[in-house]
Amino acid sequence: MGTVTQWKQLLLSALESNSHLKHSPYFQFATIGCNGRPSNRSVVFRGFEENSDRIQINTDCRTRKIEELKHCPFAEICWYFSDSWEQFRINGRVDVIDGSNPDPEKLQQREKSWFASSLKSRMQYLGPNPGLPCLSEQPLNEFFLDPSSGPVATFCLLVLDPDQVQLSAILN
Amino acid sequence: MGTVTQWKQLLLSALESNSHLKHSPYFQFATIGCNGRPSNRSVVFRGFEENSDRIQINTDCRTRKIEELKHCPFAEICWYFSDSWEQFRINGRVDVIDGSNPDPEKLQQREKSWFASSLKSRMQYLGPNPGLPCLSEQPLNEFFLDPSSGPVATFCLLVLDPDQVQLSAILN
Repeated sequence: MGTVTQWKQLLLSALESNSHLKHSPYFQFATIGCNGRPSNRSVVFRGFEENSDRIQINTDCRTRKIEELKHCPFAEICWYFSDSWEQFRINGRVDVIDGSNPDPEKLQQREKSWFASSLKSRMQYLGPNPGLPCLSEQPLNEFFLDPSSGPVATFCLLVLDPDQVQLSAILN
Repeated sequence: MGTVTQWKQLLLSALESNSHLKHSPYFQFATIGCNGRPSNRSVVFRGFEENSDRIQINTDCRTRKIEELKHCPFAEICWYFSDSWEQFRINGRVDVIDGSNPDPEKLQQREKSWFASSLKSRMQYLGPNPGLPCLSEQPLNEFFLDPSSGPVATFCLLVLDPDQVQLSAILN
């Protein structure tokens, strides 16, 4: 607790040196699809869990990755920093924390992550389809969200507990 | 043959509109690891196979993905264009074409891909370790490569035949 592992320090440095790029908090998150084939998509880094090296991701309970993680709880992150040409491959087990989680500490962590995200991000969970409100026919401003109200039912926190981390330099 | 599918047209447009970014030809390629867990890494787009929508990737026979594709020949590409905020998820079966392939047409395709890549890229296949020559102790310029000589044994062409393609816009 409280000790910063070497890879976490390197990752924080990479984030810092690539912070001028709007896309630097995005990484690719691979899971095993329900058909047994690989599944891969971009997600946003939502920080480390307090005093740990576990990685937090916000997602919508209605996305396919939730179903996939129930079948196989492992994922591999591929995080490529385009300015420093560094790549972090981080694999581990993923904890899926939705509103029905029996652990009060985890529910608190989910609530914290909800309030840490922008109001615009929170609005995404109100749309009829997960993830793509700007493409849906219903404009987002038809929804009203009280900034002080807690996480909605569709909001889910994923926490990846790193098992293996591999850092490499990508050649230009 | 010769017909450009809609997604291919959209992908070519995305590549065009993001071409000022050095990292635009990079995407993340997820496979199933030999331990059954997801595996994910960055690779470089090496164009479409002639008159088709099959995607070409060059790799080293000594990398783990080759072993993984022998166990499960499916992959999912997640290609995120950071300037236009578009994401293409492309999954399909992957054909692994190394020097021992019995099909003369495929061997020719592998040779074509070898010569289409830069001399610097080709040099990577001569190093003692796959992929990371700049981090190895032996400097690359100790190797000599005749620009006219064909693919070395470690050079492998991967061809992904798209089965499903999903395009989405990533929210800023």
